[in-house]
Amino acid sequence: MYVVQVVGYKNSGKTSFISQWIEYLRRKDYQVATIKHHGHGGEPEQVQETDSYQHFDRGAKLTTVIGENQLLITADKKKFSLETLLLFYQSIDIDIVIIEGYKQLALPKIVLLQDEMDTILETVENVKYVYKENPEYIFNKIEANWHDFAFEKIKTFL
Amino acid sequence: MYVVQVVGYKNSGKTSFISQWIEYLRRKDYQVATIKHHGHGGEPEQVQETDSYQHFDRGAKLTTVIGENQLLITADKKKFSLETLLLFYQSIDIDIVIIEGYKQLALPKIVLLQDEMDTILETVENVKYVYKENPEYIFNKIEANWHDFAFEKIKTFL
Repeated sequence: MYVVQVVGYKNSGKTSFISQWIEYLRRKDYQVATIKHHGHGGEPEQVQETDSYQHFDRGAKLTTVIGENQLLITADKKKFSLETLLLFYQSIDIDIVIIEGYKQLALPKIVLLQDEMDTILETVENVKYVYKENPEYIFNKIEANWHDFAFEKIKTFL
Repeated sequence: MYVVQVVGYKNSGKTSFISQWIEYLRRKDYQVATIKHHGHGGEPEQVQETDSYQHFDRGAKLTTVIGENQLLITADKKKFSLETLLLFYQSIDIDIVIIEGYKQLALPKIVLLQDEMDTILETVENVKYVYKENPEYIFNKIEANWHDFAFEKIKTFL
C-alpha cells in the first residue's frame, strides 16, 4: 500500500486534482482510498435524521449502515488515529491512500500552489512534487516512484 | 467482544429498543457499535455535495472525512463482509456490537414482537430472548449471559 499526502491552500485546486487522480488510478485498476480533514473545525456533513445517527447520538462509538452497494460508518474520532485507519485500509487491500490536508504531517507529499505568491512550500516538509499545470505528468511521475510512498517506509512520519 | 442480533418486523420498536440499550450500556462504560441493514434496497442516506462523496463517485473504494470529534467513512460494500467489519471493530476494542436486521443470519438474537399475531419466531434461528415490555429486564438478562454472544463463538454463524 502507498500513502500520499496532497496539500495546498484553499482554492489551489486540491479537490479537482484529487478527483482526476482517482479516475486515473481507477483506470489502472488501483484500489484507492481517500482521507480528508474537514476544514474549519466542526463535523463531517451528514444526514442526522437517521436511526444510525441516533445510535451514535445515544453513545455508540461506531455505527454502520449497510446499503445495496455502499456502506456508511460514523465513528467517534477518539477510536481512530490516522495509523489505525491506515492499518485498516491495508487489511482490506487498498493499494493507494490519498490524504488531503494535515499540512503539519511530514508524510511524503504533493504540493499544489495557488499562485506565484504562495508561501506554502516554506511551511511543509517532505515535498516530493509540486503541481503546477499538467496533472497527468505528475500522476505518471508518482507512479514511476511509488516506492517513495510505501506505507512501511512512511509509518515513521505518523 | 460480544455480538448480538436484534430482529423484528417493521414497527416492532427496534430503533427505540436499541437506543435505550445503547444508553444502558454506555452508563456501564461498554464501548458499543451498531450495524444496521438499510431497508428496502437503496443506499444509506448521505450528503452528496461533499468532496468526500465526489471522491467516492469518481471511483475511490473508501473515503474518510475526519471532523473535530467525528469521522465519516463511505465505502464500497464489496470491500466489506460482515466478518471484515466485526474483525475491524474487535481490533479497535469495541465491547459490544448490536446488529439490527439480517433476519436470515443465525447469530444469537433478541426478537421483538409486533403484536400477538407476529409470525417472526417461525422464520428465525438462534433466538435467545423475546422482548415484550420490560427492556431493562432483557438488558440485565443479556448482561448476565454475555458468554452466549462471544464473537469467537458466534463467528461460525457468519
